[in-house]
Amino acid sequence: MTGFVSFVSSGPGDPELLTLKAVDRLKRADAVLFDDLSSGPVLNHVRNGADLVGVGKRAGRTSPKQNHVSRLLVDYAQLNQRVVRLKSGDSGIFGRLEEEIEALKAANIPYEIIPGVPSACAAAAAAGIPLTRRLTARRVQFITGHDVTGQLPKDMNLAALADPTASTVVFMGKRTFPKLLTMLVKAGLPETTPAILAEGVSTPDQHIARHTMKSLADELSRDITDKPALILYGPLAGT
Amino acid sequence: MTGFVSFVSSGPGDPELLTLKAVDRLKRADAVLFDDLSSGPVLNHVRNGADLVGVGKRAGRTSPKQNHVSRLLVDYAQLNQRVVRLKSGDSGIFGRLEEEIEALKAANIPYEIIPGVPSACAAAAAAGIPLTRRLTARRVQFITGHDVTGQLPKDMNLAALADPTASTVVFMGKRTFPKLLTMLVKAGLPETTPAILAEGVSTPDQHIARHTMKSLADELSRDITDKPALILYGPLAGT
Repeated sequence: MTGFVSFVSSGPGDPELLTLKAVDRLKRADAVLFDDLSSGPVLNHVRNGADLVGVGKRAGRTSPKQNHVSRLLVDYAQLNQRVVRLKSGDSGIFGRLEEEIEALKAANIPYEIIPGVPSACAAAAAAGIPLTRRLTARRVQFITGHDVTGQLPKDMNLAALADPTASTVVFMGKRTFPKLLTMLVKAGLPETTPAILAEGVSTPDQHIARHTMKSLADELSRDITDKPALILYGPLAGT
Repeated sequence: MTGFVSFVSSGPGDPELLTLKAVDRLKRADAVLFDDLSSGPVLNHVRNGADLVGVGKRAGRTSPKQNHVSRLLVDYAQLNQRVVRLKSGDSGIFGRLEEEIEALKAANIPYEIIPGVPSACAAAAAAGIPLTRRLTARRVQFITGHDVTGQLPKDMNLAALADPTASTVVFMGKRTFPKLLTMLVKAGLPETTPAILAEGVSTPDQHIARHTMKSLADELSRDITDKPALILYGPLAGT
């Protein structure tokens, strides 16, 4: 007999944006492994007596090795525990699920993934705009602004990213945005394309600022805070 | 004094995938305008005495004109009602919010958008896979498989869609998928690329089938049901 792991998406931050299913899994968990970004009031749903294990990282702090997290998940499950692995946003989007899933598969431990509200959707909602619109924004795409080295990912598909009829959301991209803009402009995207900087989405610190790509890059060249942020660009960012 | 409109995302279908905030808005609503796809058990949260107005369409049935829905929203709000406009999945993704938002803005009626779980995220979760993975699937994109005429949208960005390092989710694309595949293969995507057909995601009718692009196109050329479906393709669909 073994335990069971629920990968639970905690949504963008506002505890009211948890799903009913996420709340149920938190309430029934014997152990909850969480990242800093997915913690806070969300953890109030965990019952007294459950193990609460912080395994997260935050900009500037060292993070536990990924294989340490996978090891913990397997260990708890093999103790026949109901384990929740909490991930911010939707766990399937830039949540680095793959390594943990592979560790569970290798140990024959059953798991489920509870989808959640992606931060990108919450950012658009906070700005009062949809991410798609007939004819003018028919494709939505999500990318990250940095790879493991902290730089822009190599081999980005600029034809996809410079498309003026897509809504693009860049996760973790404040630092690299000025460089990204240079590449996008070379690929044909006007620097006047509307852009939104969405910081602390759905938290009490939420701040939504409307820009052009150019004015946002200028601002981010001058000053960057550590606040988690998303950048939305495309025609709908100006509506 | 005027009313207030909440665009509430109802998620992919499973009522447990509603957010706490969506439940709150449903409970407090004086009127709920819903589409067929976002109805069912979700509506159990609405209080007795609230108006329940079906404005949806379904494949094969005639649908109310969009401006009729916008008119209803404005009318209810101007009666000082708390109105919920329920949309399936995340309302900002292929939910055609724009026309309704514009009608509210024109009538000076305040609104909010409550984000939700996109069907695409629920489909990936049901298949047990993430939508992103470091190095191999660093971009996620969502498109629709048809425009208002029922055909593939014109001027699709094939460089974006034939990218072997993206996860792509096609909404409402069963009928046009064979033609899409022909275009993608011409643009360089191998027809052996893994694909998943996800029907009735998160409902009791859920069916997840793993394919290659080719075998899925072959199957969809032979037989198509009216069940709502998503198609996921890309490297992660094979994991």
